[in-house]
Amino acid sequence: MQLAGILHRPESEDTAILADHQVLMRLKTARQDIEQVELYYADMYLWQEGAPMQHATMHAGLATQGNQYWTLNVDIPTNRLIYAFKLTDLAGETLGYGDEGFFDDTAANWAVTGRYFHLPYLHVSDAELPPAWVKDTVWYQIFPERFANGDTTNDPANVQPWGQGPVKRDSFYGGDLKGIINHLDDLADLGINGLYLCPIFTSPSDHKYDTIDHFEIDPHFGTKKDFQALVDGAHARGMRVMLDAVFNHFGDHSPQWEDVVKNGQNSRFADWFHIHDFPVGRNADGQLNYETFATGAAMPKVNTQNPAVQQYLIDVTKYWIEQFNIDAWRFDVADEVDHGFWRNLCGALRAVKPDVYLLGEAWHSSQALVNNGQFDAVMNYPLTQPILVLFNGELTLDDYVGKTNLQLMQYRQPNQQAMFNALDTHDTARMLTIFHDDTTKVRAALTLLMLLPGSPCIYYGTEVGLAGGPDPDNRRCMEWDETNQDLDLRQFVQTLIAWRKAHSDFLATSAISWQVQGASLTLTRQTDDHRVRARFNLGDAPIAALTAGKTMVASGLKTGELSVGGFELGIE
Amino acid sequence: MQLAGILHRPESEDTAILADHQVLMRLKTARQDIEQVELYYADMYLWQEGAPMQHATMHAGLATQGNQYWTLNVDIPTNRLIYAFKLTDLAGETLGYGDEGFFDDTAANWAVTGRYFHLPYLHVSDAELPPAWVKDTVWYQIFPERFANGDTTNDPANVQPWGQGPVKRDSFYGGDLKGIINHLDDLADLGINGLYLCPIFTSPSDHKYDTIDHFEIDPHFGTKKDFQALVDGAHARGMRVMLDAVFNHFGDHSPQWEDVVKNGQNSRFADWFHIHDFPVGRNADGQLNYETFATGAAMPKVNTQNPAVQQYLIDVTKYWIEQFNIDAWRFDVADEVDHGFWRNLCGALRAVKPDVYLLGEAWHSSQALVNNGQFDAVMNYPLTQPILVLFNGELTLDDYVGKTNLQLMQYRQPNQQAMFNALDTHDTARMLTIFHDDTTKVRAALTLLMLLPGSPCIYYGTEVGLAGGPDPDNRRCMEWDETNQDLDLRQFVQTLIAWRKAHSDFLATSAISWQVQGASLTLTRQTDDHRVRARFNLGDAPIAALTAGKTMVASGLKTGELSVGGFELGIE
Repeated sequence: MQLAGILHRPESEDTAILADHQVLMRLKTARQDIEQVELYYADMYLWQEGAPMQHATMHAGLATQGNQYWTLNVDIPTNRLIYAFKLTDLAGETLGYGDEGFFDDTAANWAVTGRYFHLPYLHVSDAELPPAWVKDTVWYQIFPERFANGDTTNDPANVQPWGQGPVKRDSFYGGDLKGIINHLDDLADLGINGLYLCPIFTSPSDHKYDTIDHFEIDPHFGTKKDFQALVDGAHARGMRVMLDAVFNHFGDHSPQWEDVVKNGQNSRFADWFHIHDFPVGRNADGQLNYETFATGAAMPKVNTQNPAVQQYLIDVTKYWIEQFNIDAWRFDVADEVDHGFWRNLCGALRAVKPDVYLLGEAWHSSQALVNNGQFDAVMNYPLTQPILVLFNGELTLDDYVGKTNLQLMQYRQPNQQAMFNALDTHDTARMLTIFHDDTTKVRAALTLLMLLPGSPCIYYGTEVGLAGGPDPDNRRCMEWDETNQDLDLRQFVQTLIAWRKAHSDFLATSAISWQVQGASLTLTRQTDDHRVRARFNLGDAPIAALTAGKTMVASGLKTGELSVGGFELGIE
Repeated sequence: MQLAGILHRPESEDTAILADHQVLMRLKTARQDIEQVELYYADMYLWQEGAPMQHATMHAGLATQGNQYWTLNVDIPTNRLIYAFKLTDLAGETLGYGDEGFFDDTAANWAVTGRYFHLPYLHVSDAELPPAWVKDTVWYQIFPERFANGDTTNDPANVQPWGQGPVKRDSFYGGDLKGIINHLDDLADLGINGLYLCPIFTSPSDHKYDTIDHFEIDPHFGTKKDFQALVDGAHARGMRVMLDAVFNHFGDHSPQWEDVVKNGQNSRFADWFHIHDFPVGRNADGQLNYETFATGAAMPKVNTQNPAVQQYLIDVTKYWIEQFNIDAWRFDVADEVDHGFWRNLCGALRAVKPDVYLLGEAWHSSQALVNNGQFDAVMNYPLTQPILVLFNGELTLDDYVGKTNLQLMQYRQPNQQAMFNALDTHDTARMLTIFHDDTTKVRAALTLLMLLPGSPCIYYGTEVGLAGGPDPDNRRCMEWDETNQDLDLRQFVQTLIAWRKAHSDFLATSAISWQVQGASLTLTRQTDDHRVRARFNLGDAPIAALTAGKTMVASGLKTGELSVGGFELGIE
């Protein structure tokens, strides 16, 4: 038995509390080493008073490059559990595994309390379950300066004609809140039920990630009255609204930083940043004497460990919830901010709105940001980016499956289902451009996205074939001229979204499995009653199509075959 | 290469922040599989601007039954790090390992940011470093009712003569705070510098784990004036003071529970417990209709998720810090209380006393209770209990080392050094009795304890040969008659404590290694300059003694040999 590969950790992602009295138990072993895993479990106190130990066989779940996961949903009437695993390997050898490590499979060993792992007492509050609505949500991300110009009277002085010319880092096109309001019916028609808006607070830039005043709407975007109309209009259409905040750093035009520049260590904001020396600037060696985001002088890093700063930022985020009833916050560069601050902020926000969705930006696996009083989820680039690489033919199917399963296993199941899954965003090149304008690949990637656990997001314009390379080209103006829109693609996306929303409960509870056969990749989601499969042809010859069920969406499907690049989503 | 055994998790116990700009990096592999591990690392932003990737070779550290740990202390000038591991196995195969899993060791792969793990930004506050004084502390645990009777005027009505008769669960002997105060000089002479007192608050029992009033000293123990004198007297002698609180459950004579019994769901404390039905009691099927500690009706479980309860318990713990300047809190049954409450309580206490030591009771590996805004440490039974089994000859030396290393690797190094390591407590049989009155084993076990990471504790009387089986026999009256004390043992313990305190810095920074040779077990602690070794003879024939250095303490050492049961602590 490969002991080195066997791992379980109590009160971690390996023991996700799904509800009161219910835990999803997980164990990791080496691949192709273990024949069977049985879980032995009991309430310790009742067992010590004579109640029997229970046992059940675990299910083989997902596999990564090196490991096989085993899972079991366990009901725990008393909320208290001791448990250990009995492993049988392919050669028939058995071994016990618990809190002290491995032990011989003898009755004497199984009688010792110390051998067992402990879940001392499950409190469902410690599950920190994400809001139930998130897993039912399909998001739509809007970069407000480029979505729609609904009010030309608030345009910046240097505004350019809509959609004209290559987008530059300092281009302005006049997009605003009224523009979004005007198109709420279009968005409702598309079927999305979550709006994620990039920052809307006062800022000199088009992207507004360099906030000046977190309590004010940028005047080029509109007024608070406009924003209230936007939120109310969205809610009336069953859409949630998520705002975007940058707390890792402030813009160098923020009043706090300008005060520091002016007053040095006498500024009342001197402790609001990470400043090594005054006046702020560059040392003789050219190094900045204060911390920044990345290496730019214009984005001084905020001292989120300062209680006064914490209170200010908590007040900001509470304000937009309490005054405008927004539903969610996305936090920019969340991974570079201290966890102590996030615990305080997230706790304060859940106190005012228990079902608020709190999302952190990160670009990598981020177990440390999820749970423990912090975020419901992070932006799940490590899950979604490999999809792009896969469909561009730069990843073997086995590698894709291994990477994807590795990411899925990073988080507790309820958080996994709340992850923010976007194939493109304001920070990446657009999918269509990455796919060299192949809209079939866009359709295939979106189909796969919709079947994966998590809360999917469409970047504005993707549904009508908007292209764009890396920032700033990925922030082109929305195409509103229907003659220039890919209406077939839009209808496809509409169908997919409708299907996804109608099946969100199924997708939240069904098992996941992958089948790789040559260049044929099949993802199966299955319960006792239903099965949904998506099959993708990633090779250079036709493959067999799905043989059963109803085809929901497809491309290149003909007489039982999927042509090169073809795919199919079928339900049974 | 055994991929299944390779594991690293960013921002976990695998990346302990030791100080600003310093991380102890850790990787787990299969045993006897890997020849070399190199860490490649850089500041992502500087690297993307052209700065070189650095690399360094990791050190082979401790090994468990299945795994080998590799460690490296890394300086991080910018507090930002991306990193990946390059593994070379015994067959010479190399592989990269990072956030996406394993990758081929090609220059192209090493150039991709996504391959690397991230420590996005180290905030030293997130290290949640335990108070520095804890690792320099040798504790002494007192069960106040049995330590010394300093004031006979406050004795309970049914007090028995000191030390007379078998101890029963309802015996009273009159021990009190004055008794402790009277013996502070004795304790200072013994050398201990931390006093851990079992509960002292109003309660009807001798053990007082069923609190009635958390704001009052039990009148049989004395007054608040006495307690202030005790704390001041301890501090004057360089001793810290730790109190013990039971927040998992209240006693059924607590005013809160009595109010619930009397007023049912109209009680203002109806939400202070976990009550399923009113009036509280047993259902027709004999089941209690409220949650309790274990299965006893007399210990109703407290609803620590209730904000009013949280505030009350925070007020309690702050009160004894602010009014009496105590240094530490130990929390009974901490593992069965919700994490959300502990985060709130620990945060509140650190706000009033930043260097307070917060210790949770648990009997098993408890990563989930340590860090993330919770405890500095837990009672480390999984580390200390195997020592008793070892010296009783019921554990192989290899198994002992594997289990011990597994426990050591559960926690970040700073927390590992703050763990509360006790060989016996008020909850276990006394070591001397477990060892069948073999005081040499007591000496050997204490010697091993003093060399292990953590904050060791002597249970009152262990130093003079007090015996006792399981509760209540382990709570016998302290032996104050010198003619009945084992004064040789006391002198041994005194020597050991003095040595431990003088070497606490060395023990905090030195590497740990084990050597097993037949029945000879050697624990080595080593820095570049110094080496300390303890060798134990666990077989039935003499073994070679240590060959170098000065012997600090020993038993059965003669002409280069350690006799059966013999041991030696040597320093070089």
